[in-house]
Amino acid sequence: MSGTQDSRLKEIVDALVDHGHAFLKQVRLTDEEFEKGLAFLKDVGQACNDKHNEVVLLADALGFSTLVALLNNSDASERTPSALLGPFYRARSPAYENGQCIACEGSPGSPLFVRGRVLDKRGHPVPNAKVDVWQASPVGLYENQDASQPDMNLRGHFHTDASGAFRFRSVRPAGYPVPTDGPVGTLLELQQRHPYRPAHLHFAIFAEGYATLVSQVFADDSEHLESDVVFGVNRRLVGVFERHENGSGPHAEFGKAYYTLEFDFVLAEGTPTYPTPPIQ
Amino acid sequence: MSGTQDSRLKEIVDALVDHGHAFLKQVRLTDEEFEKGLAFLKDVGQACNDKHNEVVLLADALGFSTLVALLNNSDASERTPSALLGPFYRARSPAYENGQCIACEGSPGSPLFVRGRVLDKRGHPVPNAKVDVWQASPVGLYENQDASQPDMNLRGHFHTDASGAFRFRSVRPAGYPVPTDGPVGTLLELQQRHPYRPAHLHFAIFAEGYATLVSQVFADDSEHLESDVVFGVNRRLVGVFERHENGSGPHAEFGKAYYTLEFDFVLAEGTPTYPTPPIQ
Repeated sequence: MSGTQDSRLKEIVDALVDHGHAFLKQVRLTDEEFEKGLAFLKDVGQACNDKHNEVVLLADALGFSTLVALLNNSDASERTPSALLGPFYRARSPAYENGQCIACEGSPGSPLFVRGRVLDKRGHPVPNAKVDVWQASPVGLYENQDASQPDMNLRGHFHTDASGAFRFRSVRPAGYPVPTDGPVGTLLELQQRHPYRPAHLHFAIFAEGYATLVSQVFADDSEHLESDVVFGVNRRLVGVFERHENGSGPHAEFGKAYYTLEFDFVLAEGTPTYPTPPIQ
Repeated sequence: MSGTQDSRLKEIVDALVDHGHAFLKQVRLTDEEFEKGLAFLKDVGQACNDKHNEVVLLADALGFSTLVALLNNSDASERTPSALLGPFYRARSPAYENGQCIACEGSPGSPLFVRGRVLDKRGHPVPNAKVDVWQASPVGLYENQDASQPDMNLRGHFHTDASGAFRFRSVRPAGYPVPTDGPVGTLLELQQRHPYRPAHLHFAIFAEGYATLVSQVFADDSEHLESDVVFGVNRRLVGVFERHENGSGPHAEFGKAYYTLEFDFVLAEGTPTYPTPPIQ
């Protein structure tokens, strides 16, 4: 392999061979175990289709994806940590004005008022940042998994005002299981792991002069916060979902009980990048 | 993952996570490199079909398969080392009498007379051992890859006589490239590696009271002996393919030039196992 011209490819494959061989030497697979492992990998590849990537799910379920995100997050002491883009991101979400609702008319679920600011590392506001948000429904399904939701439901983007603030209304998302009908589901079952992600909102924040932030905000009262199947939770990304009874709190006039979430994002200076929608 | 009930599975996945994470920490993949790696693995899985397993080919090309075989060969100081079964094994090869030819009538190529013995570790003959042999043609194709060869051409099985001896006639196999039309072919090209295996004969030897031996015998004059793309060559598995001019040697009466190969196999005591044909 020494003839590899691309030195970075050589470095990566050399390390893969080193660590792969070290793994095999440590566990000393029988021929039968090795064949089962290769058959598992084949099944994982074959379980991919236009709407689902089981290879990504496997990398997620082994903590590989979050580890890579963390390693590329080492400058996150002063900015908001990144989190996985996830398989449900779609480009070109609807444009909304601050204060508008991203849940379609009559959407079931507990109302959620979200507000926050986009700041730089010195705490100064970042005006005109594009805040793209997407989330699962109160039954844990994204609109592109769920025929009962209108196209682009629970997705939208906003722009921050002069004080760096954005706000919108939605409904509380629910946690949800990753797909368990493929080989990764079989592995999770053998490991006695539940397949759930805790409830969260996805954010991607774009602003001229700043590195794009792709992140998630997790509900502090979520059941699976400490056992997220894809290891995505970071304490600094847990947001307080505060419950307000009807007639109380900042939206006392709303006419029913509701939740509020306040969460500020801190961007690092850099060049905006645009994530590739994983699968449409 | 601590709830995994199968302790061996837990040991394997724990080690996979340890070594996988160590690999990721060492090379510090960018998000883009990680995505490319996962897409490569997906492509490898998707390149598998009824006739070809690209996952096995990847494991072969990274030396993983041969390493597993070697680790399961640690008792091979006194017996013949194992080698990979390979993707072209078929069960139920034709039964032949010693001395018969496994190449179909009029098969092109240099005649090859093979003889050998099957012995136990003390050098005593193992009579009535089943010696199953399969090989590529003189253009480097197995019959199940090549419409121009009759079914089961260059495959057959023999039984050793009271002195542990077997013998058959064939034609010299050629080395051949592994399939290069999939993602592994792309990797080999980026690594500037040739895709060839040196010329070899496959053997699987079964005898009551002995562990089954799956092995390969490589031609000592083969071009790619030191750079086998799947790292399968072992010095102890190199056989001398001796050339004899017309009218000379043990088959002087044969009427044309030919090769001979003598190779003895030593079995370890144990229980026979029967390999699963990889792909038919």
